[in-house]
Amino acid sequence: MKRPIGVITIPGGFRACGVAAGIKKKPGVPDVALLVCETPASAAGLFTTNRVCAAPVQVSRRHLALNRGRVRAVVVNSGNANACTGARGLADARRMTQLSAQLLHVKPAEVLVASTGVIGHPLPMNKVEAGIREAKASLSAGRKGARDFLRGIMTTDLFPKEAQASVTLSGSRVRIAGVVKGAGMICPNVATMLAFVTTDAGADPKTLDAILREAANHSFNRITVDGHMSTNDTVLLLASGASGATLKAGTTGAKAFAEALTEVMLKLALSIVRDGEGATRVAAVRVTGAASDADAELAARAVAQSPLVKTALYGADPNWGRIVSAAGYSGGRFVEGRTSLAVNGHFIYRLGKPLRASAAVVKAMKGTDVEFVLDLGVGRGKAVVYTCDLGYAYVKLNSAYTT
Amino acid sequence: MKRPIGVITIPGGFRACGVAAGIKKKPGVPDVALLVCETPASAAGLFTTNRVCAAPVQVSRRHLALNRGRVRAVVVNSGNANACTGARGLADARRMTQLSAQLLHVKPAEVLVASTGVIGHPLPMNKVEAGIREAKASLSAGRKGARDFLRGIMTTDLFPKEAQASVTLSGSRVRIAGVVKGAGMICPNVATMLAFVTTDAGADPKTLDAILREAANHSFNRITVDGHMSTNDTVLLLASGASGATLKAGTTGAKAFAEALTEVMLKLALSIVRDGEGATRVAAVRVTGAASDADAELAARAVAQSPLVKTALYGADPNWGRIVSAAGYSGGRFVEGRTSLAVNGHFIYRLGKPLRASAAVVKAMKGTDVEFVLDLGVGRGKAVVYTCDLGYAYVKLNSAYTT
Repeated sequence: MKRPIGVITIPGGFRACGVAAGIKKKPGVPDVALLVCETPASAAGLFTTNRVCAAPVQVSRRHLALNRGRVRAVVVNSGNANACTGARGLADARRMTQLSAQLLHVKPAEVLVASTGVIGHPLPMNKVEAGIREAKASLSAGRKGARDFLRGIMTTDLFPKEAQASVTLSGSRVRIAGVVKGAGMICPNVATMLAFVTTDAGADPKTLDAILREAANHSFNRITVDGHMSTNDTVLLLASGASGATLKAGTTGAKAFAEALTEVMLKLALSIVRDGEGATRVAAVRVTGAASDADAELAARAVAQSPLVKTALYGADPNWGRIVSAAGYSGGRFVEGRTSLAVNGHFIYRLGKPLRASAAVVKAMKGTDVEFVLDLGVGRGKAVVYTCDLGYAYVKLNSAYTT
Repeated sequence: MKRPIGVITIPGGFRACGVAAGIKKKPGVPDVALLVCETPASAAGLFTTNRVCAAPVQVSRRHLALNRGRVRAVVVNSGNANACTGARGLADARRMTQLSAQLLHVKPAEVLVASTGVIGHPLPMNKVEAGIREAKASLSAGRKGARDFLRGIMTTDLFPKEAQASVTLSGSRVRIAGVVKGAGMICPNVATMLAFVTTDAGADPKTLDAILREAANHSFNRITVDGHMSTNDTVLLLASGASGATLKAGTTGAKAFAEALTEVMLKLALSIVRDGEGATRVAAVRVTGAASDADAELAARAVAQSPLVKTALYGADPNWGRIVSAAGYSGGRFVEGRTSLAVNGHFIYRLGKPLRASAAVVKAMKGTDVEFVLDLGVGRGKAVVYTCDLGYAYVKLNSAYTT
């Protein structure tokens, strides 16, 4: 799954960098990244809802609130999650923002911070600080900045994950560029999904926040690798305004922007599933005909998270019984005789009756992308959740010693 | 894990049998079982809450209600779940009770039925009927009956699962004997947990039902293999009254009986986890100090069902970060700095701070039985859930083709 890195370009108003500071064991691998906005950017953030919440998440959440969504920089390290590290971890996360602020001549509250990697170990702050200084000295705009930053945030990702789009807003072309790291909760310890999306559109932080939440509901909140929520999840959207165009809530332009943002974020989200630990294929679990959207969501999540469904997916096994029975225990309205299931458009179970798996179904199951449409036949509710298969590689990646 | 089969004895008043009827592919393997009570037994039953519910579950539930908890026989087949089989499946399940009733000279509503095996295939009724006739002709009491019945209900179980106890009730010795089959949701398809517990105590069905529900809350409802609820789960408790002693709700005798029953059912439940698909070890996840029992239950279930915790268990990896973070997203009250975790009595995380894994912890993780005590430090709520590890064998068992 080797892919070229650095296809995307950072939108105007931003510079970025990634350097190897020696936090990761392997020498020369980038592990400190810095994203800087020339002028205060509007920012919106989404963070893990896990009550075990890493120090950088606590600091970023507070800085976003303190400074009312105005941000000048984001500093990131990979190789160490700075989670479950107590008072020392908090001090270290704060120090990362302070040093960055000092070097950039801004306030610490204007700097956000994110970390990803192993849990429960203190950060090697001498290395981190040297890395931040070096990163500050090597900031670039455009493709180089994007590529270096993306390299700096990766951990066990098998391939770089990026997406971009552009949209016309009040007559100006505005750009959206996003990068993400994550492949589930990765060995050797609890890891992280970190996403950074930049745009040269302008926006007030409140409008940005609403757009980000809605886009996340259709992208990052629609994926599952193993159902285990991280302590470090962070999604940041920064708007520099460098394009001269501004997002106004409720306008056609804002709607087009929201759609483009959702597309970028969905692409990033799907790249995480595709790189799910040991994954060989991705399945879209679409539930239709549910009594409500909420019921559809329950059913889609139950199917997408069932280890039995995920191992069957690994074996390319059109095991409809597991899919239908997962929906059956999901808690929403369910009538066996009204339920149908299609794989890539081919029915394998219709109105409560099993059909023989056709050659088309068998072939579809062997592809890298499978779509299950589970129609519950009781209403108009719908939802989709994306998942990956669970194979030997998942067990291998996750059963190794940490101690 | 070969163990002797047939250690237990059916209590007085019952006879049983298991015969090879050819439902399973392998010739000579028992697949039809019959349990008969000389006089009407009081019965209580618990069934899957999955809305995809197998035909035999529908019939048994209805017969129990129709006949107000009075039962003369239970007929079981293994090798075919008779689930997702529509009207034909219902007719087949009814036919199994009708034929048994006819042979035993009782009413069909006095017969319960259970099936386990592959989903979505019609039962080979000619074989099933011949099997029921043969079983009726070979009923035995005592150890032989128990052994033959137990053999008849097994599917991919690696070892037979049985437990017994006796208790004094109004001066009489009463016996409790239970058998169960199940190893999770087994390849090649959705399978089943079936448990049959008999006693020679007497009881009215209402008292029996209350005792069974309470015992199940402390046994079968405390285990998880993969969190995927079956379509066929059935737990039946039959009381013949042959001992002459009768259970009266609220008495010391009933309390002693309930305790003994819970012990038997917990033993059966744990034997399922031990035989969980590909399992090499069993973990008791005990949560203490929660804000409420409900919160403790949420945390224990989140930990016990996390694929990351289960793969770490497979690798004998004392990966406390996964355990603590699973509790963190479970939804109950959680304060990182008050949380502690011990493995077989040895702390590895105390009041929010990681400790170095001691030699004792490393050794404990390698055993076949591991106990995690996760203290949340915020109240007096507690709960326990038993789980098994997730290893390569789980993937192997569950990724094979069904089609």
